[in-house]
Amino acid sequence: MAGREFFAVRTVAETLGGFRPARRTATETVALAAARGRVPCEPVRAPHDLPGFAKSTVDGYAVRAADTYGASEGLPTYLEVAGAVAMGRAPQVAVTAGAAVAMPTGGVIPDGADAVVMVEYTQEAMAGTIEVVRPVAPGDGLVRRDEDAARGGDLVPAGRPLRPQDVGLLAAAGVTEVAVHARPRVAIVSTGDEVVDPATASLEAGQVRDASALALAALVRDAAGEPDLLGIVPDDRERLAAVLRDAVASSDVVVVSAGSSVGARDETAAAVASLGAPGIWAHGIAIRPGKPTLLAECGGVPLIGLPGNPRSALVVFGLIGVPVVRLVGGMSHPPPDPSAPARLERDVPSAAGRLDIVQVELRDGVARPLFGASALLSVLGAADGYIVVPDAATGLQAGTEVVVTLYT
Amino acid sequence: MAGREFFAVRTVAETLGGFRPARRTATETVALAAARGRVPCEPVRAPHDLPGFAKSTVDGYAVRAADTYGASEGLPTYLEVAGAVAMGRAPQVAVTAGAAVAMPTGGVIPDGADAVVMVEYTQEAMAGTIEVVRPVAPGDGLVRRDEDAARGGDLVPAGRPLRPQDVGLLAAAGVTEVAVHARPRVAIVSTGDEVVDPATASLEAGQVRDASALALAALVRDAAGEPDLLGIVPDDRERLAAVLRDAVASSDVVVVSAGSSVGARDETAAAVASLGAPGIWAHGIAIRPGKPTLLAECGGVPLIGLPGNPRSALVVFGLIGVPVVRLVGGMSHPPPDPSAPARLERDVPSAAGRLDIVQVELRDGVARPLFGASALLSVLGAADGYIVVPDAATGLQAGTEVVVTLYT
Repeated sequence: MAGREFFAVRTVAETLGGFRPARRTATETVALAAARGRVPCEPVRAPHDLPGFAKSTVDGYAVRAADTYGASEGLPTYLEVAGAVAMGRAPQVAVTAGAAVAMPTGGVIPDGADAVVMVEYTQEAMAGTIEVVRPVAPGDGLVRRDEDAARGGDLVPAGRPLRPQDVGLLAAAGVTEVAVHARPRVAIVSTGDEVVDPATASLEAGQVRDASALALAALVRDAAGEPDLLGIVPDDRERLAAVLRDAVASSDVVVVSAGSSVGARDETAAAVASLGAPGIWAHGIAIRPGKPTLLAECGGVPLIGLPGNPRSALVVFGLIGVPVVRLVGGMSHPPPDPSAPARLERDVPSAAGRLDIVQVELRDGVARPLFGASALLSVLGAADGYIVVPDAATGLQAGTEVVVTLYT
Repeated sequence: MAGREFFAVRTVAETLGGFRPARRTATETVALAAARGRVPCEPVRAPHDLPGFAKSTVDGYAVRAADTYGASEGLPTYLEVAGAVAMGRAPQVAVTAGAAVAMPTGGVIPDGADAVVMVEYTQEAMAGTIEVVRPVAPGDGLVRRDEDAARGGDLVPAGRPLRPQDVGLLAAAGVTEVAVHARPRVAIVSTGDEVVDPATASLEAGQVRDASALALAALVRDAAGEPDLLGIVPDDRERLAAVLRDAVASSDVVVVSAGSSVGARDETAAAVASLGAPGIWAHGIAIRPGKPTLLAECGGVPLIGLPGNPRSALVVFGLIGVPVVRLVGGMSHPPPDPSAPARLERDVPSAAGRLDIVQVELRDGVARPLFGASALLSVLGAADGYIVVPDAATGLQAGTEVVVTLYT
């Protein structure tokens, strides 16, 4: 990731494949109760066999399978009931030839038994004796002591956010703390002389409230990062450079939403260039909306300069920024995005050589493109998701089968 | 939802459509910065027009469109530059016939102008005069003062969790607090004489650590609820009934993971029945795994009795409990689940009359069914998602096109 590629316009595919800054967050330990969505640094291994004892999976009788061979409704096998296993207790009795021990689901298989006959296939013949009307094979009606996990085996992999069932499996194994990547700290800087805080009650002519920062913060949290809102910096190269320098020093990822005019964008690019030998990886991405995007790596820390208009900023950050935050946070196996197949309701024009992100409403399998100036944030609000018109295509015809990436 | 339907086994479809307890959480106000994923009680309306002023969407010149009619490369229109609009400031000059005002992207359209010509279609002819080489129509190059939202119009709907772009749109409109449904408080009760806390370092024979409670808590948070872990209650009808009575009084939803044996399940059902005229809506669901599920409504509060084995409990809670938590939390428009089309690698047997949930690994569009006793939690850990074998089917053949619901 060298500085030689100044002012390069990149495709989205090049960017997703090639912009891979070195930064990774450190390891920290979290309690299992807070571990959902966190990213293990290493596979978590089973400290012992799980469940740790051979266990009945049915209500019935623990037996020697060989004793039941040939059993049928017409010719049942008779077994002596030697006792009963109580839930959560060690068996007080073993299973010998010709004997059976009553079992609850989840009970410990007694010594000597190699199968459990379901109670449905037995009946009491007389006090202390049962009839078995179906044969069982060794292993029927039970799980082995290491069938859920063998000691030392992987319970969960590294790099994949912990899912609810992963949390359950770790709890079952007695793992109550997990070593995970720290959440990437993502600095969010807004710029633009026209931009004011969302809490500004009444605006002067030409002012706009900062729509990007809080929305980007939400996307950062979705990507398992921790947003750090650094506020609004006026269009002043020196001040912006100073803010960015501090942000690079104290963050894992830096995001700056540039002003929307050409002049403001140039100031942002100049401020980034002044950070001291940054590797500017892309200055422009072949995507619409979102072309004026800047990607750089400053001492390993990725810096993402987003377009000034909030809609473009959110589209680009969702597509390119979110994977970067995940990468820095050690997420080698990110969760899948929801998507749905659909038919396109009408023609979508596009230019070859760039990726077009088209917002759509989705109703009954039909994707209706939402057009409107990229300055309109309401188009994103009305959208259920988006479709991608590939670089090579010059548009998509009505009726085309598309995949809609859904917003959640 | 009357008590007359005691001991009814329900289909999943009946349950999803019919089990709709009355409870809804109260309204609370949250700061916009914390509103991602929260559920608005009412549509949030625009307090004023957005953006609030007609705004240039390009760098260029504000003009009267009529002045540019017929303009071409060969026969440009000449306009006098009457001034420039500064970013974030009110225009100091109006556009009169034959005049143009320089505009940054995002600048306020001056009085008298009805379009903006992109700078690319102009050039400076002499100091103070530009050539325009393409005509514009009224409305070109700008957005109207109410084009993102008209005052009083809906910015976001009720009942749909706020998405990042919704947060952005609200910020743009200056809405910094949102009235949302309180997170449903979901009591989680574990039962079973064999069940011990996950922090228990070493187990006695037959004991198992509580895998369900923490995993259920994670699913509750995913459903925008707030879990409240009430711990492990022994298989004792009176004690369980007392715990459940308190839970119903102080929670919005009550979840109890019953013991895994038939006896323990009966105790749970009896404890629920003793709560005093509860409407038991289902006592058994036609689903595998998860048949021994109990659904009741106690004074409007849904009570969900889950199977004792953690895998069945998580499958049933994901399918049936999550929608209930969302409903109680006012989520009339839940977010989509990720899913992917796939081909089935091998035959999956099933019995007609029940829904089968089959865990699968998904690789390159091929879904490989993961079999194994329902007592094995590791099967859920290894799965990328699940497929549903419908009630009517007696199995699915290898090669069948299926939809895999993906875990995240």
